[in-house]
Amino acid sequence: MENKFDEVVEKLRFLDGVTKKSAKRMAIDLVNKNNKIENAQEALDIIKNDLGQCPTCFYMTIDNVCPICSDPDRDKNLIAVVSTMSDAMTIEEIHDYNGAYAVLNGEINLSKNITPDKLTIDKLFNRTNKNTELILALNSTFNGELTANYIRDIARQRGIKYTRLARGIPVGGVLDYVDEKTLSDALKNRKKDD
Amino acid sequence: MENKFDEVVEKLRFLDGVTKKSAKRMAIDLVNKNNKIENAQEALDIIKNDLGQCPTCFYMTIDNVCPICSDPDRDKNLIAVVSTMSDAMTIEEIHDYNGAYAVLNGEINLSKNITPDKLTIDKLFNRTNKNTELILALNSTFNGELTANYIRDIARQRGIKYTRLARGIPVGGVLDYVDEKTLSDALKNRKKDD
Repeated sequence: MENKFDEVVEKLRFLDGVTKKSAKRMAIDLVNKNNKIENAQEALDIIKNDLGQCPTCFYMTIDNVCPICSDPDRDKNLIAVVSTMSDAMTIEEIHDYNGAYAVLNGEINLSKNITPDKLTIDKLFNRTNKNTELILALNSTFNGELTANYIRDIARQRGIKYTRLARGIPVGGVLDYVDEKTLSDALKNRKKDD
Repeated sequence: MENKFDEVVEKLRFLDGVTKKSAKRMAIDLVNKNNKIENAQEALDIIKNDLGQCPTCFYMTIDNVCPICSDPDRDKNLIAVVSTMSDAMTIEEIHDYNGAYAVLNGEINLSKNITPDKLTIDKLFNRTNKNTELILALNSTFNGELTANYIRDIARQRGIKYTRLARGIPVGGVLDYVDEKTLSDALKNRKKDD
């Protein structure tokens, strides 16, 4: 019997943040609830038609406009380098950062064959000049550090200033789960990285 | 900027098993990934067109067929009373139960104004006769017990047999953390170990 239901679960569980159990719960919740199905369909339509990724900084665009790159008050020489759109949005939520972003779309991960060329690192260095400061706001994990080191090496060769978030981020901590106060302090106390 | 994105998150997070954080992660994951959006749209189409709820037992139907009620080998006099479709599916997964179900579509919850008439309890008692055994497989929580008591009272009045799931120490359970009632029941119902 479970064929079509299992198919639904398989189609939902590949999404970020969705486990097999939560995919099942979502699917069961949607059965016989036409208003919930419509809501979800509308959400997908908005994502498909109105949301995208900025070709410059890879932050989320709405109706093809990047709220960061299009804002003249943002300091474009200050670039926070983050691994995901979600991390950039987490920094936005502290309402305390006035620079730009470079979303890498991932981290270097050699065991998963994610080499530096799979990320947006070349696009990042197209934007840098002698006045640029890169804030390395990457996860304090093995692959996060690996990615930060790689970018630091290029920046050093090119004479570009780089800093990292203050050690307010606990070792092994994932940026997405850090509270706002810690993140805000870590931004303010960012250190020259050497 | 966040308006349309927030709208998407709001439309996704009302689903069972989805938190605000996981709704955000899902939405970000879907941006710019047309194949993932299509997969999710297909999942919604299958749910909308092919899945439903049995008008007799309220288990999930596929193409309007209930796999439980339509199975002649199932004992229709043995009815496991569960609060959700999901609970019935969990029991199905042990492949060890050959009776039918009565999915109540919730639990009595007086603070949320979920009174017995909001559940499928009347439909359940339309299916009972003197040979019926109701297995009360409800949650061992305040509202689960309240619901079980309510059904037990009706069954008693009508002379219908009822049982409940055994209480005991779960596999992997630590004795020190088991409450007194469970431990007391587990002692009374102790089994010869062989």
